[in-house]
Parts: sequence; structure tokens; C-alpha cells
Amino acid sequence: MSQADIIYFDHAAATPVEERVLRAMQPYWGELFYNPSSPYSPALDVRRQYESAKDDIARLIGGRRDELVMTAGATESINLAFAGCNGHVVAPVTEHQAVLAAASRLDHTLVKVDRYGLVDPDDIKQAITPETELVSVALANNELGTIQPIAEIAAVIKAERQRRMDQGDARPIYLHSDASQGAGLIDIRVSRLGVDMLTLNAGKVYGPKQVGLLWVRAGVELRPVVLGGGQERGLRSGTENVAGAIGMAEALRLADKHRKSEAVRLEALRDKLQQRLVAEFDEAVVSGAPKKRLASHLHISFPGLDAERLIFRLEARGVLVATGSACAANKGTRSHVLTAIGLEPEVADGSLRISLGKLTDEQAIQRGGDILIEEITSEYERISR
Amino acid sequence: MSQADIIYFDHAAATPVEERVLRAMQPYWGELFYNPSSPYSPALDVRRQYESAKDDIARLIGGRRDELVMTAGATESINLAFAGCNGHVVAPVTEHQAVLAAASRLDHTLVKVDRYGLVDPDDIKQAITPETELVSVALANNELGTIQPIAEIAAVIKAERQRRMDQGDARPIYLHSDASQGAGLIDIRVSRLGVDMLTLNAGKVYGPKQVGLLWVRAGVELRPVVLGGGQERGLRSGTENVAGAIGMAEALRLADKHRKSEAVRLEALRDKLQQRLVAEFDEAVVSGAPKKRLASHLHISFPGLDAERLIFRLEARGVLVATGSACAANKGTRSHVLTAIGLEPEVADGSLRISLGKLTDEQAIQRGGDILIEEITSEYERISR
Repeated sequence: MSQADIIYFDHAAATPVEERVLRAMQPYWGELFYNPSSPYSPALDVRRQYESAKDDIARLIGGRRDELVMTAGATESINLAFAGCNGHVVAPVTEHQAVLAAASRLDHTLVKVDRYGLVDPDDIKQAITPETELVSVALANNELGTIQPIAEIAAVIKAERQRRMDQGDARPIYLHSDASQGAGLIDIRVSRLGVDMLTLNAGKVYGPKQVGLLWVRAGVELRPVVLGGGQERGLRSGTENVAGAIGMAEALRLADKHRKSEAVRLEALRDKLQQRLVAEFDEAVVSGAPKKRLASHLHISFPGLDAERLIFRLEARGVLVATGSACAANKGTRSHVLTAIGLEPEVADGSLRISLGKLTDEQAIQRGGDILIEEITSEYERISR
Repeated sequence: MSQADIIYFDHAAATPVEERVLRAMQPYWGELFYNPSSPYSPALDVRRQYESAKDDIARLIGGRRDELVMTAGATESINLAFAGCNGHVVAPVTEHQAVLAAASRLDHTLVKVDRYGLVDPDDIKQAITPETELVSVALANNELGTIQPIAEIAAVIKAERQRRMDQGDARPIYLHSDASQGAGLIDIRVSRLGVDMLTLNAGKVYGPKQVGLLWVRAGVELRPVVLGGGQERGLRSGTENVAGAIGMAEALRLADKHRKSEAVRLEALRDKLQQRLVAEFDEAVVSGAPKKRLASHLHISFPGLDAERLIFRLEARGVLVATGSACAANKGTRSHVLTAIGLEPEVADGSLRISLGKLTDEQAIQRGGDILIEEITSEYERISR
């Protein structure tokens, strides 16, 4: 099957690098290859360009350059956000594996979500103890697309911080959010979100893979995960990924520029596909918060079907779609997110995560919808025989 | 000054990405952008190509694919090598900042070196205690180019391991070596070196920056530094850097292919430059082990001169050269390596690290030598006035 025949419905798992992003990175593999820590002026120029890329990124999220720590992706950023913490941590039960794994090293409470995958800020409030130092909530769930009420959760943290201050209790409490899945579709300015730390991933917004960052509000104390030459203000050592930072800046600039129009465009395409599938299959179950959902995401279950089998059939016809997240899918275990929202196993096991993006146009939605309907119909016929 | 006029004498700090390496990486930013953990066959193809790149790398160092952990560079690899360790560690005092920083978190002994920067395997032996779990020695020092007797040190570790086995002591002891500075010039096959863990850095061998690996001999127990989706056998989570691994494999393949001829070529060029400078300046002090030195490295001191000033003048004439390592140079502190080999401050402060590589040809050596002699002469005249 040729590339042109592929209908890619898995933008939440990976995105191709934008041509403009690649072009911006190119010089740093060639003539501008210098180590930004070297003392001569061509290297100092490279350092300035690296810092200027960080300035650009900082501006886009409403932070400052010296609050950014460049990393090798969201997973590392999340680990770094947790690394300064000795006390208790709170996170929704539907968080990404990286958050759950980092939390598991510490005293932690996982907070339930409702059937839409939404966490209740009151539940966060209840889970906070005097020892709580970190609350970590993804801006949007990678499987369902459900957008969490981060600003309301931030208000809970702020109230707790005030309470501690009033009592002369110096223990800090921070709010971290992984916005990897929201960038390019919703507002990720840190002042709007009210977070103390923000994780971003270039690989999810048409930038290079293995490039990410942790924005850390001035005053937040962290411990480095990787020690060495002292780069990134000592928080993350290693020769800087200049090409990566330049590429991430360009990717985020494009994501920000087209954010509103892309959200409107994808929402219309997503809703069209959703309506068609729901009209065609009475038994279909759409998950995620109807009004608080990324425009890119459609999580839909076909009770009784085997999603892994379905994916195989769809792939043979050029439609690439995921069951749950790529990480979990790879291990053949049932998604912890679907369990958390209370999907029955026979519903959960028939779930597709369809995620749209730049590669999705009207034609892809039309033809993809046709193929989905044919293959789902055929699978239902097969099991009813 | 145009790129063509630059004489780059700092290959130990950074290398440009080879054209062939870039070409090999290109498809993975575009049409082969899939997440290797996704379940459909185009993604499985990408996974196979990722694993095949790891196979290629493993073959070049004489290891197995499942013994490789891909990382974001040597600094992370070193941190990972140390992460499994609770006991005592031993390292030469001349190690890279990443080793010194990782060691500083643990009970540790730093072993002295001789005036050439060589560590004596007997000193390693003396430093080992019953609690020692890790010995970490760089294959070649990044400032001096001095090549350490890794195989002899490996024999010391092996004897200690045998001793513990005989006594029924289950505490492990491992040898780790950072071979970032040796790859492409000397034999880095793990069986020849006798190491249990090996760090490599693509950015030093004309591959992409922020790509590295830790080879971990089967049976060595490590603890992950970065937790999450469980990639790299759980030792290093995060979506795989497919383009990076493909690029590193190609870079190491080229490095291996041209290793012997390049070592001969660079040694002749280096020796020519060294002889000229030593003949011209009686006071010049060449450091590093005369017969155990990377062919690329010339560490030379001009007592009484201010190397930072000299570098500035050389740069104005297009000659790019370092004082000590790029990391240390950036902080304006005196190199701990030069202190360790006993250089007097007035000698150390007049030190240049000249490191040759693919961008170095006869003409660069001739013209670079002319400029070096003119500028050093001029600086000596200035201070003698």
C-alpha cells in the first residue's frame, strides 16, 4: 500500500515532522554544529540561537526562558517534575504511565475520575494531606481526549498553599500538568492554567521526537535527574540539543498560530465521523467528556468486538487507528483509563481511539468512515454467525 | 568569516553530522514517523528498523541488541550506569563531570593519575573495598586524549569478583567505561575492553547530538533513571528516538569502517603540528601519554600565556580551539584534569586542547600551524614587553 492510500487516525501517538520545522533544524546538523558551551564566537552564536529558541518557546507559553528545562521528551520531563519531591503526591488514576510510575516511587494517592474521565477538583482537595508536595494532572487524557479542569485544580492548590502559609508551614505544594496532548488545540499559557510546572512534547506537535521540556516556575525547587556538566541551570546535564530546541520552537510557533482554526476544523471533522458511526451502530459507546474533549479525539467502543482484530483489518485497508494508548497497547493489557471510567470489559475490548490531525482532511474522514463502517459491520456479522 | 575559512580544531567538543547519517535519518522524520509502539504494520516496520539499527550497533561493539539502552547522550548513559549502585564506587579523579557528579551521590573514592593522566590499575585495586559495586573509567580522557589501560583494570575487577565468589559474597562489582572519546579511533569492542557497561555518544562521531547508548552486559542489574511506558526493557522509558538510533548506527558503522585509516591519518597530522609547535616554542609543554594517546588529541601548554585571550585571537583568524573541555571552559574554572596531572597554574592557564577529525586536512594543519605560531609569538612578545 502506498503512503498516499494511508488514512492516519493516530495523531495522538505520533506526528510527522513539519517540513518547516525540519528546515529550521537543518543548519544545526551541518555548519552550525558547534557545541554551545565552546568558547569561540561561532559556538557562542549557536548558544544565542539556542537561547533565542527557548525565548520563543517561553513567550508562547507565557513563561521566561530561564524557567525552561529542555529534555528528551515528556517522559523525562515528568520524571524531573517528580524528582524534587519527598512527600506525598496526588494524581488522577487515569494519568499516563510516566506519572503513575513516578508517583509509585513516593507516598501517593490516585484520585478517581467520573465516567467521562473528568477529575473533580473536590476529590483532589480531599486527597491532599499536610504532606502533599505535588499534584500532577494531565491537561488532556491521551486516550479519551478529556480536558481536565486545571484552573479549578490550581485554585485548590493555591488555597492549600495559603492555608500552609497562614499556619507558618513551609512545606511547598506544586501543580504539574502534562500538556503534551493539548498543545496545538487548546490554550496552554501557564498563567491561564495556573500551574507551577508544565510538560510539553515536541513529538506530538509535528516537531522532532525525543525533544520536550519542563517549564518550572521561578521559585520551584527541583532535584536534577541527570547530573553532569551542569547545563540547563544544573537541572539537566548533557550537551544541548540545539537542533531539537530550534525545531520545538518552530513546531510550537506553528501550533500556536493555527491553534484556533485547527481546533474548529478538527472538531467539525471529528463530529461528522462520530455522528456517522453512532448513527450506523446503535451499540456504539463514545467515551470522553462530550463538552470537554480535545477536538482531535474520538474514543469509540463497539461492544463485543475484538479491537485488536479490528485494527488488523482496518490496517489492511490503509486505516491506521489505535486501541487505547500506544504504550499500553504494546503490552496487551487492558487500558487502565477505560477501567477507571467504568467501561465493562466487553465494551473496553472493542475500543478504538481515533485521533485526527494535520494529515486528516474531508476525504480521509469520508473514506475512513466508509472503511470503518464496512469493517465494523463485517466483524459484527462474523461474531453473530 | 566564511565557513570555508574556518579551521576547526575542536572535534572533541562536537562534530558535524555526516551527510550519509542525515540521509539515513531523514525518512523517520517524514513518511516513517510512526510511533514504534503502535500496533499496525507500518509502525511495526518502524520498530523492526529501530531494532535492526540496534542490532547493527550491537554487532559493531560485539554485544547483543537486548543489551543496549538508547539514551539522550553520554551524560544520561553515565547516570544510568551509576543508578543501580548503592555501594561504593571508584573512578579516576580525571573523569568527566558526569561521572564525578554521579559518583558524588554515593560513597566514592577518586583515584589519582600520573603526570600523563594515566591511572594505575594497582591504584584501582587498592581503592576497591568490600562495598565497591562500580568502577568507572573513561576509555580516553577528553582533554588529554590519554587512553586508559581498561583491559588491565578489567582484570582487577575480574579478580575481585572471583574473590567474592570464592567467599560466597554475592555483592556485584562492575566496570563501566565511557568510550565517547575513543570511538572511531580505537577498538571499542566490549570483549576486548572487558567492561560490563559501555557508554557511547553519537554526537562525538559525526552522528546526531543528544543520542547515546549504554551497553549493559546481560546479567548486570540496573535501576531506571526515567520511568514510564517501559521502553528499552523498562530501563529507559519514552517514545523511542528512531531517527536518532538509525543515525547513530550509520555514524558508528562509518566510524568503524574508517577507524584504522583515520587513526593513522590523524596521528601523522597531529604529530606534524606538535613537532612544529614544540620546535618553535622551547617552553611548550605537551601533556597526555605520549604512546597512549588518541590520534586526534594534542594538549599543549604555553606557560605564561592566557589561553582564553589566545583563543579569542585565534578565533579572529578562523582557528577554533578549546581550553580544556567545553563544559569546564564555560564555567571559567581551571580544569580539574590539569590540576590532577600536576600542571602548575601558569602552565595550565596557557593550555590549548587541539582536537583533529574529519574536517582536518594537510592544508588545515599547515595554515592552522602558521596562525598558531604567529599568534603565540605575538602573545609572548606582548607579555615580555
